[in-house]
Amino acid sequence: MKKSLLSLAILTSFAAQADEGMWMPQQLPQVAKQLKAAGLKLDPASLTKLTEFPMGAVVSLGGCSASFVSPQGLVITNHHCVYNSVAVNSTPQRDLLAGGFLAKTLAEELPAAPGSRIFVTEAVENVSNRIVTADVAKLTGKARVEAMEKNQKALVAECEKDAGYRCTVASFYGGLEFYRIKQLEIRDVRLVHAPPSGVGKFGGDTDNWMWPRHTGDYGFYRAYVSRDGKAADFSKDNVPYQPKHVLKIAREGVKEGDFIMALGYPGRTNRHRLPSEVAFTFDWNYPAFVKASGETLAVIDRETKNDAAARLKYAGQIASVNNYYKNRKGMIASYEGSDILARKTAEHNALKAWVNGNAARKAEFGADIDAVEKLIAERDAATKRDFFLSYSTPRFLNSARTLYRLANERTKPDVERKSGYQERDLPRLNAAVTGQDRTYVEAVDKALVLNFLKQYSAQPASEHNVAFDNALGIKPGMDEAALKAALDRIYAGSQLQNKDVRTAWLGKSPAEFQASNDSFIKAAVALYDADRKEEAQEEELGGNIQKAYASYMKAKIAYMNSKGQAVYPDANSTLRVTFGNIKGRDYGADGTGSWTAFTTVKGVVAKHTGEGEFNAPEKQLAAIRARDFGRYADPKLKTVPVDYLATLDITGGNSGSAALNAKGELIGLAFDGTLDSIISDWDFNKAATRDIQVDIRYILWNMEKVDHADNLLKEMHAL
Amino acid sequence: MKKSLLSLAILTSFAAQADEGMWMPQQLPQVAKQLKAAGLKLDPASLTKLTEFPMGAVVSLGGCSASFVSPQGLVITNHHCVYNSVAVNSTPQRDLLAGGFLAKTLAEELPAAPGSRIFVTEAVENVSNRIVTADVAKLTGKARVEAMEKNQKALVAECEKDAGYRCTVASFYGGLEFYRIKQLEIRDVRLVHAPPSGVGKFGGDTDNWMWPRHTGDYGFYRAYVSRDGKAADFSKDNVPYQPKHVLKIAREGVKEGDFIMALGYPGRTNRHRLPSEVAFTFDWNYPAFVKASGETLAVIDRETKNDAAARLKYAGQIASVNNYYKNRKGMIASYEGSDILARKTAEHNALKAWVNGNAARKAEFGADIDAVEKLIAERDAATKRDFFLSYSTPRFLNSARTLYRLANERTKPDVERKSGYQERDLPRLNAAVTGQDRTYVEAVDKALVLNFLKQYSAQPASEHNVAFDNALGIKPGMDEAALKAALDRIYAGSQLQNKDVRTAWLGKSPAEFQASNDSFIKAAVALYDADRKEEAQEEELGGNIQKAYASYMKAKIAYMNSKGQAVYPDANSTLRVTFGNIKGRDYGADGTGSWTAFTTVKGVVAKHTGEGEFNAPEKQLAAIRARDFGRYADPKLKTVPVDYLATLDITGGNSGSAALNAKGELIGLAFDGTLDSIISDWDFNKAATRDIQVDIRYILWNMEKVDHADNLLKEMHAL
Repeated sequence: MKKSLLSLAILTSFAAQADEGMWMPQQLPQVAKQLKAAGLKLDPASLTKLTEFPMGAVVSLGGCSASFVSPQGLVITNHHCVYNSVAVNSTPQRDLLAGGFLAKTLAEELPAAPGSRIFVTEAVENVSNRIVTADVAKLTGKARVEAMEKNQKALVAECEKDAGYRCTVASFYGGLEFYRIKQLEIRDVRLVHAPPSGVGKFGGDTDNWMWPRHTGDYGFYRAYVSRDGKAADFSKDNVPYQPKHVLKIAREGVKEGDFIMALGYPGRTNRHRLPSEVAFTFDWNYPAFVKASGETLAVIDRETKNDAAARLKYAGQIASVNNYYKNRKGMIASYEGSDILARKTAEHNALKAWVNGNAARKAEFGADIDAVEKLIAERDAATKRDFFLSYSTPRFLNSARTLYRLANERTKPDVERKSGYQERDLPRLNAAVTGQDRTYVEAVDKALVLNFLKQYSAQPASEHNVAFDNALGIKPGMDEAALKAALDRIYAGSQLQNKDVRTAWLGKSPAEFQASNDSFIKAAVALYDADRKEEAQEEELGGNIQKAYASYMKAKIAYMNSKGQAVYPDANSTLRVTFGNIKGRDYGADGTGSWTAFTTVKGVVAKHTGEGEFNAPEKQLAAIRARDFGRYADPKLKTVPVDYLATLDITGGNSGSAALNAKGELIGLAFDGTLDSIISDWDFNKAATRDIQVDIRYILWNMEKVDHADNLLKEMHAL
Repeated sequence: MKKSLLSLAILTSFAAQADEGMWMPQQLPQVAKQLKAAGLKLDPASLTKLTEFPMGAVVSLGGCSASFVSPQGLVITNHHCVYNSVAVNSTPQRDLLAGGFLAKTLAEELPAAPGSRIFVTEAVENVSNRIVTADVAKLTGKARVEAMEKNQKALVAECEKDAGYRCTVASFYGGLEFYRIKQLEIRDVRLVHAPPSGVGKFGGDTDNWMWPRHTGDYGFYRAYVSRDGKAADFSKDNVPYQPKHVLKIAREGVKEGDFIMALGYPGRTNRHRLPSEVAFTFDWNYPAFVKASGETLAVIDRETKNDAAARLKYAGQIASVNNYYKNRKGMIASYEGSDILARKTAEHNALKAWVNGNAARKAEFGADIDAVEKLIAERDAATKRDFFLSYSTPRFLNSARTLYRLANERTKPDVERKSGYQERDLPRLNAAVTGQDRTYVEAVDKALVLNFLKQYSAQPASEHNVAFDNALGIKPGMDEAALKAALDRIYAGSQLQNKDVRTAWLGKSPAEFQASNDSFIKAAVALYDADRKEEAQEEELGGNIQKAYASYMKAKIAYMNSKGQAVYPDANSTLRVTFGNIKGRDYGADGTGSWTAFTTVKGVVAKHTGEGEFNAPEKQLAAIRARDFGRYADPKLKTVPVDYLATLDITGGNSGSAALNAKGELIGLAFDGTLDSIISDWDFNKAATRDIQVDIRYILWNMEKVDHADNLLKEMHAL
């Protein structure tokens, strides 16, 4: 595993910035010098062992990161990562979101939201040569994609023979390398503790991605397994899972300048993209997304204004759209007026010059680098063409397509089915189809579709999807009234909004679909051949892109190494380590001179309004007023710190990541970046980028002095 | 005028801070040294002449400050001071709040909101000896109050013989001095220009009292008079008023450290209060107000949640309550943990020691200083007792009391009527009674009253108002259901919510009231004698307080002068001058290191979300993106400044105050302070206090590059 990485990425010395880099654990010995310089006291080699301390304590929640903090399977993560579990256990009579939740005993713990998982990574294996075998290497286009997918499914099936494990094959360096990751999939997850939202979500959307920040973004789960230690569905007979390693809570507070590292599962970055991909994203794709998101929010707002129940159903979508809306706008703002594209272009031209300056390199990479630009331009054109189409598809038309696809796939042996439709995928697929009406209101869905369908309709006929038009009974250039009539017709002709009707289709045969009169089912059947044809085209393009892109990345890595620079792969939801220092910033927002590294409970009082997003609990305010700080006051700040800035390199998925000090002790949880840091997903700016941690002292202070969670403090040996 | 002030307040040298002080214009020569030190280039004596430049250009809008900026009566003030005029001229089809308004010609100008006034101060005269005559000096209690009121009414009547003028007698130094102020009352006020709320109210309530700030808080009125130059009601035949002086727009931008002064009408400060008044305010009165305000907002929110029309009717009250709610909470936060009370107590003890250390002084002031403490404790006890009572009174019961009082007062000759019920007061009284239903919803009013009536009901019987209880048919200790039944009864029995019915009472006789069956009218009649008795008690107390307080203030001024310190009077809505420097602050909010003196349009872009309170107009954003800054970019900031901080001493009422540079040229408009500055109303903290101006360059840039208000720029000679 390490050998292969070394051969590709880490040839000579390292000039990467200490603060940039989402390192795979096995890469860490290669940045030992930087780790030492930043202040690490542990042996970097000890961080490479996934089943040893501290890596053995770090887990994924699927979208969030977390860590074991007691031998009884207690897991600490962000409040926003346990938020849904608090929400589903709340009732108007017992609003756990508002009041918080604390189980004083194991018996009081509550089942987490359906589908909650704790993934404990137990093995990571380089399977590049088993995905792109010698045979695959000769293939192109769709054939290549299919052969790779076949290999991948076989690798997953082999690994998942071990019951209770979830295995995935992740692509690194844009399809150049592949790793198989084996994770224990703990399915009995229980909610143990969450502070009131007035602490855990203090500042709400207003403060999201902002500094100064005063959010106590923490919460606790517990992992349960069967009595024989295996992953199991929820059962009263289950027992707490006993992790091999747990994180120790730091007794000593942190201060500016201290070493810090965060261990977690960052979702996705785009640091190795081509200049043309950068330009397409910022000049077209993100602006289009921002515009569409604004429209989506406005339509939902308009359609649910006088219907609290409908608004509640769309609350999740509103939050999610808002989140990306703010994120993408922040990125666009950072990009505008920056030199990112110019720099990326210059770097890319330098790479090409380096390749073309040597006959062997030119022979190996030249054609692929030319090809990748052309292929990606093709993909961008399709993205543009289909942008409004994807927003214009009724939710249950998509469901009908999924259901009919499933019926077709199920006629094949499991191993031959498309990924996503295998037996292993069915529980999640079933759950998704079953739960759809909880977030659906026909009038809202129709209004959203109509809003975008008007824009799709205005596209030239050459950019229309004829099969889609026919299935919906629309034509290019149709006016709003005609489009609305078509939508009224197709929505009225379907029963899929009825849960029983919808879920019944999960078990039906293709023939039953073909005989159906349900308008969305009929449309899905009518679209099927065209959808497959389009999929085949996408796969043809995808296979060619993968081949060319992998070659381009290989060239890029070789080029970087030739300059003495290490290359870490873009984030892909696999375990990574980022390290740096706790550090403020010498400039702040417009009108402020700087950011200090820490906020304190003083700021909670200053921001508290007693309502909405800034509503700290009275018992917390009382403890602050009484200066009941215990051992948690910072010696210099003379009060309890809340959040702090650091130079870590994180992104979405890192939420809940354990922040560790030089000795590997828990000093906080990473939970956010600042708005002008999120451009780092594309271009890491060392001067600007800061991430935000909630200080472990604030967590412990709240638990001891405000919420009296003594049982958990004792369990963590933190009292 | 000057002589008297000198004799009392300005005896020797001056040690007051350059930045503290709301100086009466005639006091300015006395702080000439400080004005010079701060950087003033004008002769301080020139600032004392109310009808000369620049004072002659400064006007009051009644609650806001403003200035003439063209010989054609063009007036510049804050956006929030013209807000209602923009609102009343808006329709769903033509939303001037959202889109802004610009009259390209005089003919396009719109009438300002009903009741809008421009007051041009023409004379200020010390009338202390005509209010507290030798005869009055001998009186105490109610007799003293009545004699002073009689003298005051005579002084006002004498002055208002000059048609078109409004005269008032203002009390200075807590009733020690009185000045008669003669103002031309311009009644034909027209809206000329307001930027979109996305500029003028950018940041909304969220940013209110906050820094960093990016609000373009400016707007324009024009004063109109009859063709013969007299104040007149709105008429098409009216012509622009020609002010004697106008402010010149500064061509040169300002920078940190520059001299700045603001001319305006600050409303009210409490810098000369007794320690016991400070303690009562912060330990009881403000906290009670904050609690009641929170309840008021919650009740209105609950009662109007599903009724957009009702919510609209209460929008004004919500905004006002919110404003004071935030203000008072900010003051309490600043007060808590401060040494204000300890310092005030020490100062007061030092004053008493100084008085008691000299037989003559002891004889003159000793008894009054003792008395004032006792009398104010009496007043505080009554305030406490009646706190919930005032919140528990139905709106139209108060109207009925006012109407019946009016009927009774009108039986007397005008000169003998109570202030507020004289002929000069009737137009405003009529307008208030007529307009009440625009802000009234019975269910909301009843819910508010019930909320507080429960708390009033829980007071001991000894703290109940028996007449009030009888009039409403309630008893001490009644439970919610019984109180609600009583309210249902009395609300159901009145027709005062009907505008025609209500306004008809404006002309009726006491006998007609006494014969009425309307429940609120009956209650008002029943309460009348008790109300008069209570009023008499209040006047008795008030007269004694005035006498003792004036004596205490005289002692205090003498004491301060003995230490070489000047004393400016507390703000009382009369014309004042504050001066200081443009200056950031070396600390910011928790989590930020400092405040820079200026914000810029960069921050507008950063805060812009495209919705709600942070929704800058697209055309403005486009101009920023295009860096179309013209001559308005700051040479150091390289972009257009928006708002800036200064060390000025302002409070509510200063909104719209002209900010002038060392040469007396307009460099911006004061519009706000920061949350931790508002405690300055009680205790000026030089290190913390900063006020906020909108930079004239931002105003001009918006007008030229965004809104194309070339006509106004030409009129101001600013192009």
